[in-house]
Amino acid sequence: MAAIKVHGSPLSTATRRVLACLYEKEIDFQFVPVNMATGEHKSDNFLALNPFGQVPAFEDGDLTLFESRASANYVAHEFADKGTQLLISGSNKEVAVLELWKEVEAHQFNTPSSKVVWELFFKPFLGMATDAAVVEENETQLGKVLDVYETRLTQSKYLASDNFTLADLYHLPNIQYLLATPAKKLFESRPHVDAWVKEITARPAWSKVLAMMNQ
Amino acid sequence: MAAIKVHGSPLSTATRRVLACLYEKEIDFQFVPVNMATGEHKSDNFLALNPFGQVPAFEDGDLTLFESRASANYVAHEFADKGTQLLISGSNKEVAVLELWKEVEAHQFNTPSSKVVWELFFKPFLGMATDAAVVEENETQLGKVLDVYETRLTQSKYLASDNFTLADLYHLPNIQYLLATPAKKLFESRPHVDAWVKEITARPAWSKVLAMMNQ
Repeated sequence: MAAIKVHGSPLSTATRRVLACLYEKEIDFQFVPVNMATGEHKSDNFLALNPFGQVPAFEDGDLTLFESRASANYVAHEFADKGTQLLISGSNKEVAVLELWKEVEAHQFNTPSSKVVWELFFKPFLGMATDAAVVEENETQLGKVLDVYETRLTQSKYLASDNFTLADLYHLPNIQYLLATPAKKLFESRPHVDAWVKEITARPAWSKVLAMMNQ
Repeated sequence: MAAIKVHGSPLSTATRRVLACLYEKEIDFQFVPVNMATGEHKSDNFLALNPFGQVPAFEDGDLTLFESRASANYVAHEFADKGTQLLISGSNKEVAVLELWKEVEAHQFNTPSSKVVWELFFKPFLGMATDAAVVEENETQLGKVLDVYETRLTQSKYLASDNFTLADLYHLPNIQYLLATPAKKLFESRPHVDAWVKEITARPAWSKVLAMMNQ
């Protein structure tokens, strides 16, 4: 029995973020499906793992975490010597650049990209009507964020350095869903962003996450 | 001339987050006011410091950062031996608890609290009309977040441990503005949250941030 458990749904962006990290680090884990259709994530058992009632929850022995980025960040540090090196080691100034681009994902990219994913991917998937005004507003906002990324990616191959790090990995779940919508034009119209998107979505660890959908 | 410069506005929540950290760490810095009324934050000079055109920008010698949490996090690590200890040192599992509560602030607390601050503090301040539906929706959401905090604060004095850390500090700017609005009832109705709010807003370092308004 693996010490690490991820309780979540293979469709959830937050769950996929943690799974991508575990596959990059080549860590054994047990995936525990949470049936969100029946409200299992609001059950007392699940709330004991994550008081916000959101997937995923994460366990490593006696440590219980939630928040996908906190869980992935723990995995990257705890298993620093295994699999892909997702961190930057060095001076505080060097590490600060990784932390900066993690915060950019959280506070610039995440909100507009999540809103477009909801409107253009999940709403049609659930038979709900897309709100065109919300799409337009958030595509405009996301485009401005990607303009900054386009410039940044002329300076380094990945966001925080010339190596793939957690800062890139955190973007994968929303990017993958956007690629299945007309919003993919926002990537394709920016050459460095386009190359970065192609590179990070082609990673074998990410393919393993997507393959879990078929199990 | 101080090596550290903060370019920002004393009214800005993000600027205040960085200033609070510098005062906690007792670090000399130069404050460079950015005149947002004239759009100085969208000038080429400022965009060279922060490509997103938002305050604050942060400099320590040849390091330039933006994103207030990344800047504060750098200060906490670089000056770990000075002033208040804002980090948790120990095993990866112990550090993960701090990272968890930092992520909770970013992904649970920040959005609803920022929306209520905008509607109930800044809009009246700017002579704009408050949208009651937005207030109600976000106060409800914020209340659910504070319910989790109420339980958490029965387990430890502060969010991440029995000591004040970055996870608490990151909340200060929005909490301070909420205290000047009817939304303060969300704190006052939850005894452990209320005590925590009183404790962290009474810190001398935070008083120094607020005093900058009068300079």
